[in-house]
Amino acid sequence: MSVEPLPPDVVAEAATRIRRHVNRTPLLKSALLDQWLGHNIVFKAEGLQKIGAFKVRGALNTLLTLKEQKRLPEHVVAFSSGNHAQAVAYASRLLGIEATILIPKDASALKRQATEAYGARVVVTGDRIEAERHVDTLIADGAYLLHPYDNDLVIAGQGTACYEALQKGFHPDAIFATCGGGGWLSGTFLAARCAAPATPVFGAEPQQANDAAQSLRRGEIIKLPASPETIADGARTLAVSPRTFHYLRQLAGFFEVTERDIVYWTQWLTHLLKTAVEPTSAVAMAGAFEWLKSQPEPRTVLVMLSGGNMAASTQARIWATDELAAPPRIAR
Amino acid sequence: MSVEPLPPDVVAEAATRIRRHVNRTPLLKSALLDQWLGHNIVFKAEGLQKIGAFKVRGALNTLLTLKEQKRLPEHVVAFSSGNHAQAVAYASRLLGIEATILIPKDASALKRQATEAYGARVVVTGDRIEAERHVDTLIADGAYLLHPYDNDLVIAGQGTACYEALQKGFHPDAIFATCGGGGWLSGTFLAARCAAPATPVFGAEPQQANDAAQSLRRGEIIKLPASPETIADGARTLAVSPRTFHYLRQLAGFFEVTERDIVYWTQWLTHLLKTAVEPTSAVAMAGAFEWLKSQPEPRTVLVMLSGGNMAASTQARIWATDELAAPPRIAR
Repeated sequence: MSVEPLPPDVVAEAATRIRRHVNRTPLLKSALLDQWLGHNIVFKAEGLQKIGAFKVRGALNTLLTLKEQKRLPEHVVAFSSGNHAQAVAYASRLLGIEATILIPKDASALKRQATEAYGARVVVTGDRIEAERHVDTLIADGAYLLHPYDNDLVIAGQGTACYEALQKGFHPDAIFATCGGGGWLSGTFLAARCAAPATPVFGAEPQQANDAAQSLRRGEIIKLPASPETIADGARTLAVSPRTFHYLRQLAGFFEVTERDIVYWTQWLTHLLKTAVEPTSAVAMAGAFEWLKSQPEPRTVLVMLSGGNMAASTQARIWATDELAAPPRIAR
Repeated sequence: MSVEPLPPDVVAEAATRIRRHVNRTPLLKSALLDQWLGHNIVFKAEGLQKIGAFKVRGALNTLLTLKEQKRLPEHVVAFSSGNHAQAVAYASRLLGIEATILIPKDASALKRQATEAYGARVVVTGDRIEAERHVDTLIADGAYLLHPYDNDLVIAGQGTACYEALQKGFHPDAIFATCGGGGWLSGTFLAARCAAPATPVFGAEPQQANDAAQSLRRGEIIKLPASPETIADGARTLAVSPRTFHYLRQLAGFFEVTERDIVYWTQWLTHLLKTAVEPTSAVAMAGAFEWLKSQPEPRTVLVMLSGGNMAASTQARIWATDELAAPPRIAR
């Protein structure tokens, strides 16, 4: 399968397209963290985005583009147990079209509630095969399948978060984002190419869900045999797609993060930033920390925080140990 | 002991005095919560204040007033294991004076670290008697004791959070704040009298630390025999003071909140607002919820969220159960 690469300015176009419908999320800082690490760390806080995660950007860019092209479907379908489900529900309601979200039966009641509260029809499905059969029927009836990352319009939309940050007139030495299916990371890469062409972009992934890291080492897409056991639920995808792999191969580097470090940074960022930080977001900070340790001079980095939606059971796992007893430090 | 009541405009004066040094914290809303309750709930988020809590307002108003009066001490002392310690450390450093904070030996390492990071000298003391002896020595040497609530300048400073909220041109039907020593609640009451004289102000307190509720019922200050067991650590004070009791007696009502409800609202506000909400803040929302249930018509309320500083052990207690399984609702 060949991929037609996107020109970086699709991100700028997407930013203009969705601007009226998304929150311009803040850039956050912690003076204490900067003091402890001897670097300048700036966070883009997408936990404060509509639906609590960046995903609404890609969904909106897709549906608004289809509308501009007079191809807006009457019915959108998505398969997700997470933030993408809520994003598609939210964007569909905004555009006045119907949304059906297929949610696996082991998804939390909380995510189902939220998706329904945004007005979507939720169908609880058994296994993947049953779900795919259901999707095929809906597509045959004219529904549009909104894929969470294997979609150019979604990738361009996700990039608008980084683009917004770079419009604020600061010039980071490096940018960090987490890799799940690669849509968020690919969009971030394109945003940097568009607004800060010389700035290196780094990816980070849980070590226990390292399909992208393996794929980058081997030069071909590796698919995990089963859903990986990581607390970073946004990174539990089995494989990236050819579309996102194209951009991942152009990154300046890639970090694999332990579960312990994910929990550590989830606790510390929650504590220091006073905002909801999901484990998937903390993965990017863990990568940034590794990179900063290697830098002899003070650096300014942009860390993309993907969202802040957590089930109570995830919170209980996060706070099962006390990581706040040992503050982060980089010795000089 | 007689108390000279403050004129409400001391809060407006304090707001002008401290404005340059504090964050103008946002008013937050949750569309989902409003939909579920059938009311309009606005939150003043002091978790996003400097040091993560409202306490910096009172400390700054006190020291800046003393400076205006050419009475700024060279050395400030405070006795606290919580947010007041960090507030006094922060305000003292800003004014370039020395701060000594006496912290009980069972206080968390986290709070000690934070207080030291703001530049204060921390003295770990054994029991209350030892601490008071130490304070007496420092006062004899010219240090100023900054009491967390039994101080008119502190009360006026704490009121600036509510005053700021009321300046934003919205007119709540009622205002809710948590009662610890009563400084925050008294300041909130004065702010309302200053900026929205007809608006009722309600207090709320953990049932397990209900010294203020008992005091209001009896018409005299009741002191608890020992530090109460509540997860809302900002409300563990043994008694209010005559100074704050004077304002508490003028409230429109007072709610006593169960530990279960405190945990319930801590989880839900964390989830819906995507910002750090400490259990002490959730007490005010639990009170507001009780009041809203009794209202036949849709109401707009202002809920004062005091702060967002939590030890990992507190987070573990908060998330030990799954309260997110049952969304809050008011049936019509």
